Amino acid sequence: MRIASLPDFLLQRIDRATGQPVNRQIYQVLREATLSHQLPAGLQLPSSRELARELAMSRNTVTHAYEQLIAEGYLETRAGAGTFIADTVPDQIVDICRNSRGDTDHLGQVGLSNRGAQLIQRAGVSALQWGAFMPGVPDVTQFPSKVWSRLQNKHWRRSRAELLSYGQGGGYLPLREAIAEYLRVARSVNCRTDQIIITTGIHQSIDLAAKLLGEHGDRAWVEEPCYWGTRSVCHSLGIEPVPIPVDAEGMQVYQTDASHPAQPPRFIFVTPSHQYPLGTVMSLSRRRLLLEYAAAHKAWIMEDDYDSEFRYGSRPLASLQGLDTHERVLYMGTFSKTMFPGLRIGFLVVPEGLSAAFATGHSELYRGGQVFTEAILADFMTEGYFASHIRRMRVLYGERLRLLQQAIEHHFGDAIDFSDGDAGLHLALHLPPECNDVAISSEARAAGIITRPLSGYYMQAASTKRGLMLGYACVPDAQIAPAFDKLAGIIKRHWPA
Amino acid sequence: MRIASLPDFLLQRIDRATGQPVNRQIYQVLREATLSHQLPAGLQLPSSRELARELAMSRNTVTHAYEQLIAEGYLETRAGAGTFIADTVPDQIVDICRNSRGDTDHLGQVGLSNRGAQLIQRAGVSALQWGAFMPGVPDVTQFPSKVWSRLQNKHWRRSRAELLSYGQGGGYLPLREAIAEYLRVARSVNCRTDQIIITTGIHQSIDLAAKLLGEHGDRAWVEEPCYWGTRSVCHSLGIEPVPIPVDAEGMQVYQTDASHPAQPPRFIFVTPSHQYPLGTVMSLSRRRLLLEYAAAHKAWIMEDDYDSEFRYGSRPLASLQGLDTHERVLYMGTFSKTMFPGLRIGFLVVPEGLSAAFATGHSELYRGGQVFTEAILADFMTEGYFASHIRRMRVLYGERLRLLQQAIEHHFGDAIDFSDGDAGLHLALHLPPECNDVAISSEARAAGIITRPLSGYYMQAASTKRGLMLGYACVPDAQIAPAFDKLAGIIKRHWPA
Repeated sequence: MRIASLPDFLLQRIDRATGQPVNRQIYQVLREATLSHQLPAGLQLPSSRELARELAMSRNTVTHAYEQLIAEGYLETRAGAGTFIADTVPDQIVDICRNSRGDTDHLGQVGLSNRGAQLIQRAGVSALQWGAFMPGVPDVTQFPSKVWSRLQNKHWRRSRAELLSYGQGGGYLPLREAIAEYLRVARSVNCRTDQIIITTGIHQSIDLAAKLLGEHGDRAWVEEPCYWGTRSVCHSLGIEPVPIPVDAEGMQVYQTDASHPAQPPRFIFVTPSHQYPLGTVMSLSRRRLLLEYAAAHKAWIMEDDYDSEFRYGSRPLASLQGLDTHERVLYMGTFSKTMFPGLRIGFLVVPEGLSAAFATGHSELYRGGQVFTEAILADFMTEGYFASHIRRMRVLYGERLRLLQQAIEHHFGDAIDFSDGDAGLHLALHLPPECNDVAISSEARAAGIITRPLSGYYMQAASTKRGLMLGYACVPDAQIAPAFDKLAGIIKRHWPA
Repeated sequence: MRIASLPDFLLQRIDRATGQPVNRQIYQVLREATLSHQLPAGLQLPSSRELARELAMSRNTVTHAYEQLIAEGYLETRAGAGTFIADTVPDQIVDICRNSRGDTDHLGQVGLSNRGAQLIQRAGVSALQWGAFMPGVPDVTQFPSKVWSRLQNKHWRRSRAELLSYGQGGGYLPLREAIAEYLRVARSVNCRTDQIIITTGIHQSIDLAAKLLGEHGDRAWVEEPCYWGTRSVCHSLGIEPVPIPVDAEGMQVYQTDASHPAQPPRFIFVTPSHQYPLGTVMSLSRRRLLLEYAAAHKAWIMEDDYDSEFRYGSRPLASLQGLDTHERVLYMGTFSKTMFPGLRIGFLVVPEGLSAAFATGHSELYRGGQVFTEAILADFMTEGYFASHIRRMRVLYGERLRLLQQAIEHHFGDAIDFSDGDAGLHLALHLPPECNDVAISSEARAAGIITRPLSGYYMQAASTKRGLMLGYACVPDAQIAPAFDKLAGIIKRHWPA
């Protein structure tokens, strides 16, 4: 490896005004940088001729410095390869980098704000993002990368400047058109192109809506249990999540206000198509109640439709947004499940009256999106690859859900219940209240099995249920039973006597 | 174009329980969807055989519905091509989409929060992002897209699942290593790999730091004038920007607190290498004062080093972070200028005590980054392409700066002053206080020339100066003089008599 900016590094440190010979200064700078690891062992230096040209100095000056450093062991020459920072200066290492490693147990001490410390303490994100049974992750190995590469290369050959510069105005127009058309047809979303705002995913969609529509100190109803990310983003913006329990019909919104906290919320976050994490589907009557409540109290419904493309067998459900006649619903979707998470593209459908403000607000707050990638995705959708990839994955994931269900029944029969809503990328395995799902999950992790304890999705001890979130979509068919065998052993050891 | 999800669309709307014949229901759904533009004119439908299979119905059922629709003119067949939504139903269009177009003049009325309305009203983002003299945009046509494509294709062929899943822990490790090494050498930043947090750019870096280190109601010193994005992101998080004037040495930080607002700020945002927008370089004595002030008052210095790679002639300057001995500096950089803006990758270097919290906080708040693209960028850097691209652009942009300087001198001689700091991608052209830079800029825009009025970067009327921001980096050599000729004509018409 070479550091081409070594000339800059030296020029910053050489001062001709001191009267000290320049070769001596080069020697000292390189020596100190080697001792302090600013220049790491093994780094190849430019040839003395090259460096002299870059520094606008005579070659002799550089050669003298190099020779001295080689003589003292700081540099070494390798035959036919060049000059390198030497490997062996262990005794003299002066680590000028900071060495006071942060104590994350005392987050306030290192300088975190209250909201920062709370965010980190409550963090729900996992260090592992791939493997059985990672919830919420699609099988990215099945992604048609050849098609994608081809579309990508086509765009690189055209290389239009606008696609490489800053994005603005809600995202790349043809992608917004493709998404609008897709949502109208597949999800019964009522929308025109200008209502589509391209984001980096659900998190950014929440952030944008919360900043544009919410004030610090506002409250947001969230489902109990709910996705950890929704709570974290709300907290980070000073918006207090208020847990509203979920039953078999969805969030428990009732006609009378008596059963609710006195102050209506600014936002209501729901996952009507496939409750996260429980998998239930919000009933039509509950949907209507929710829409009426939101219209009456001027609350914004944030419909998180994160994985509704994957339904196995049962009839696909129309979106809540499509039922809304009062412009109170913001619909959020993501390509993380249908394409791959690292794409970092999602979208927000806003009521038409808000579309201009959201497009401007997005550019202002985030400086636009990955326009080039948005253009490739637009092609991928309009050329039909998106729909056919979803169809193919639907068959694959449906089969994997069946395999996981079989494995669960094989081990536990009727003794254990699970909910999946016949849809999505994960199921929730329910455990008896005496079972410590956190302990099971961490034991499983040690055995190489990723799960998430269901209790982590609840905010209130009283409503908390025990269980495990199991993602099956990213697990090859043949691995499902063996991986569950391991997990079942751990669960059985924790089973109440 | 085809809508592969038409079967879903139909299944959501067909109800066998009603007793109405299914072919009639298909007919009605398709008819209504055509009238309402949910299915756009020109859309190709699946063949009746295909659709029947997908709906698990007899082919006759579908054929009957299709034939009726064709007979009534809603569908049309094209020989050898298939069945399409007809082009001509103009009289009957019932636009079921929202038609109450939002009135963005009354942002509160459409439901924006106070902070949302303020953000939109103050928005600094421009609708145009490419062309002479767009400030802050590099010449993306010079980007080595073949090399990039090749590295990209290499990664697609390997297609490791981890690169497509969610990112976590501050970003893709090899990229963090490459950035740390680059910064140590080129910018004299004191850092280890774990201090590097990959973000989507300066905006996200500010957002993350403000959420983790700041509280709602905190104050942030910003340079007067400063980058509009810094102010917007702060505002959106309830952090009040306090303008501190800039002189030839940089932000006016003095030893005594008397000259400053009584309450010390939580953050101090500075651009020491190349003041944005004025181009000045912060003096060493001012840097030391700033570091002392921050250490004494426990303020965080946010060093925005957005374009320091491009210095023409003068000696490159070490970073402020490298001078800091109290761990009060967070250093922010971006690949938007060195690579291309649509890449949406930047980085934050945090004090070591904060590195674990920032890595966790980043995953928690944004659900990770574009890991796949991060891997390609890591290769691009370690294989030397990054440094050589910068070197090549430095020569190119240096020449363009010279051409723009010549054009200015040609038209205005000594009558007009400009500042560029002999660095970066733009210069600030100073105008007499009587000149309306906003009017000049909007007239120029109408003539196809993009500029930004300098007055827009100021927060206080008393300190506001008039001028134009001119980006030269993205303008081909041959276009610089002609484009400036046009602009000069407009300026001269506005020149005070």
